[in-house]
Amino acid sequence: MAHIDLQNDLPGIRGLMQYSPGTAKPLNALAEILLRSDDNTLSRGERELIGTYVSALNDCFFCQHVHGALAGHYLHCDMETIDQIKTDYNHAAVTDKMKSLLAIAAKVQQSGKAVNASDIASAKAQGATEKEIHDTVLIAAAFCMFNRYVDGLGTTAPADRQFYTDRAPRRAAEGYIDFNILN
Amino acid sequence: MAHIDLQNDLPGIRGLMQYSPGTAKPLNALAEILLRSDDNTLSRGERELIGTYVSALNDCFFCQHVHGALAGHYLHCDMETIDQIKTDYNHAAVTDKMKSLLAIAAKVQQSGKAVNASDIASAKAQGATEKEIHDTVLIAAAFCMFNRYVDGLGTTAPADRQFYTDRAPRRAAEGYIDFNILN
Repeated sequence: MAHIDLQNDLPGIRGLMQYSPGTAKPLNALAEILLRSDDNTLSRGERELIGTYVSALNDCFFCQHVHGALAGHYLHCDMETIDQIKTDYNHAAVTDKMKSLLAIAAKVQQSGKAVNASDIASAKAQGATEKEIHDTVLIAAAFCMFNRYVDGLGTTAPADRQFYTDRAPRRAAEGYIDFNILN
Repeated sequence: MAHIDLQNDLPGIRGLMQYSPGTAKPLNALAEILLRSDDNTLSRGERELIGTYVSALNDCFFCQHVHGALAGHYLHCDMETIDQIKTDYNHAAVTDKMKSLLAIAAKVQQSGKAVNASDIASAKAQGATEKEIHDTVLIAAAFCMFNRYVDGLGTTAPADRQFYTDRAPRRAAEGYIDFNILN
């Protein structure tokens, strides 16, 4: 049971968004543009992976499984591969550019101030553009918000990880804009 | 100098928002509804204070001074009073309800999972409503994002604290929606 009476039984951020539709709107709009806009050289799968990794670092069960399933859906890989990226991306099947961006995301998860010139230089050496670095920082920062919102209010989450995998294709098709209206 | 070429000289989040206007829109809309909407029993000053306190905990110079100056503007108190709240709110001139909400905000700054039933019960015992608790958690979470965005990309900030105090009345009058257009 959540810390406050959400007046609904929806899990994770979905219950919060139904409770507070006014704030849900900009939150969903932010997720939509950050994670799904076509005007981006990082694929949807790569962007979901950054969010998944930060959510894992923040130990947010709901977010890491919603977005991990979406990353798996877009990148055509299974839950075990996503798990490996979360626990040890340096030895997982991701590009060197993605490794350098995940390293920046991990710094942002600790603190914005942890990111240094050397992290940026490493990402650029692997071919990351300035826009990709910007988006990586903002995605990581945004998940530090989403994770805290979800766990700070003690929301519930289905324990069965297959639940998230099963829902991912529908979420991928519908996007974030009408997240609650459509669910 | 910021970690990436922002193609402008604006400080803090203002430079980022001019660089990335697409993401600026939902970020400003979120700030506007969270910190300024009239449909809220926490005053604008109280909400800015929560953001200021979290920004201080995250050691984000730009955010804690922009929002600290706004809190001072709304609450009619000087920089020293805001400083005291940031460093030791338990002995500062804030209500017991605000103290209990700042305690929740401090937990959220650490991790969403740090908030427990006892924190919520304490806030309710001081008269906080469930909506006020919800908004406190989301404001604290949102500043964990804003702070990381601002510092994760190494933005600059005016060192003179008076700069922020001088700008606060204009920011209070204009709000967040057209943050960059109007500056």
